[in-house]
Formats: sequence, structure tokens, C-alpha cells
Amino acid sequence: MKDRRIIDAFMLEAIAEARKGLSEGGIPIGSVLVRDGKIIGRGHNRRIQENNTMKHAEIDCLINAGRVGSYRNTVLYSTLMPCYLCGGAVVQFNISKVVVGESRTFPGSEKFMLDHSVEVINLDLDECVDMMKKFIKEYPSLWNEDIGK
Amino acid sequence: MKDRRIIDAFMLEAIAEARKGLSEGGIPIGSVLVRDGKIIGRGHNRRIQENNTMKHAEIDCLINAGRVGSYRNTVLYSTLMPCYLCGGAVVQFNISKVVVGESRTFPGSEKFMLDHSVEVINLDLDECVDMMKKFIKEYPSLWNEDIGK
Repeated sequence: MKDRRIIDAFMLEAIAEARKGLSEGGIPIGSVLVRDGKIIGRGHNRRIQENNTMKHAEIDCLINAGRVGSYRNTVLYSTLMPCYLCGGAVVQFNISKVVVGESRTFPGSEKFMLDHSVEVINLDLDECVDMMKKFIKEYPSLWNEDIGK
Repeated sequence: MKDRRIIDAFMLEAIAEARKGLSEGGIPIGSVLVRDGKIIGRGHNRRIQENNTMKHAEIDCLINAGRVGSYRNTVLYSTLMPCYLCGGAVVQFNISKVVVGESRTFPGSEKFMLDHSVEVINLDLDECVDMMKKFIKEYPSLWNEDIGK
């Protein structure tokens, strides 16, 4: 596991959201939206909790952020590389930058976002990988449903 | 205006959803999800009504459809060409086919969906164009916010 001191403080908040989701019986993916060094929205995957197929972590975070005006100077943090639904939101709303915890357990829509000039930073954290690996191993069907497999 | 008799019955339901949204003070975009010739979900843009930035018509429709299992044999109808958020949902969940009312007022993510092997049929209906044109003219800032401009 990488030294937590070098993990971006906002990623630690996204990880805290993921753990909250897990404690509720949900899929451990968390997200925060940051502008000018402040968190303006936070959320986690609530698919199972709310029986809502679109409640991926990033979507929950963006809903909770509310009507923030322009997204051009925002950074979206997610413990996992966004899927096409969430990457689609990033591209549509012109979110400038995405910081992810990992993409080893799910490749997501990285290329799609890069092709649309989104800056994507992958911290590749063992902590995030371990959380997803454990969940996928224990609940493979819930995970496959989450990503439309 | 094209002869309504030749408009797909499901598109008429999507248009009815759009009109319902308009009557609530919302953006007139409607959507239905169809499988085996039956509507299994329906919805409309509720951004304004629910102050929910992610409640585009297609997302509302997919939430309302619930956990339907595989989307491979589903067709998503929308009165307007889906944006990247909604096109992202189509691609992520492997929805096979999208039928839209028009793309004259908004080009959306047509190329992105086509590039991901989604069949996209554009009915190019004056009825849908007129509904959007009127709304955009009356409420340009609400529309621009809806598409992240």
C-alpha cells in the first residue's frame, strides 16, 4: 500500500465515501467534486441502497453538488476510473480534470475522456484496488450489473 | 409537420412525456425504454422540477425502468438526440438501439454512439424540433445549463 501521506487529501475523502457506501451494503466507489481547493459535492455509489441503476458514485456526487454553474474549473475525484455514463457526464459538462484512485479493476472510459481533452490522473492506489477486488470477488453479479455486463 | 400516423407509437409516448415535462415547468424532452414491443420505462427531463442536474430525460427513464437485467434487446426512444451523459449510459449498458425525434436543435453524441456500434435512428420530426426551438428561445439560460454550456 502506498504511503497515505502522499495521497491527495481529496482522494482520501473519495475513499471515505466509498467506505461509507460499503458500510451501507453498497458498491465501494466514492467521489468528490472540487473547485478552488474546496469540496463542493460528494457522493458514493447508491445503486443497491436506492435501487437506482444510474446512481453511480460520480453521478451521486454531481447531483449532490447541485447547480454549480460552469464546471470548467472543477476537478472530479473518483476511487475508480469512471465508466461511460460518468465519463459522459464529465465530457458533457466540461469538467476539466478527473483524478482516479485506480483503473486496474475496471478500465472505464479513460480513452474517451482523453479524446475529449479531459485531463485524467490515475493515482493507481493499492487501497482502492483492494477495496474493489474484495467486493467483486464477494459479489460478482452485483458488480457486473453495475457496469452493464 | 410530418403525418403523425407514420410516427412510431413509442415516439408518440416519448413526445407525451416531453409535453408532461413542459407542463411542469421543465425542459420538454421525453424518453421511453422498450423491450419486446412493450414500454418498460418512461421519463422526462426533471432538472428544473427536482433541481437535479443529472435528471435528463433518458436518465429519468432508465431510473424508472429499474433493474431490468440485460439491456441488449432494449430500444431507447428520446425526443432529442442524447447528450454525452445519456449516450454514455446507452454505451455503458449496451442498449442496442436508439430512436430519436430530432437532432436539429442539438447534435448530441450521435457519432460517439455510432462508434460504439449503437444503431441510431433519427426520425427528424418537426414536432420535436418545434417544441425545443420554442423552449430554447424562451429560456436560453436554462437550456445552456442543461447541456453544460
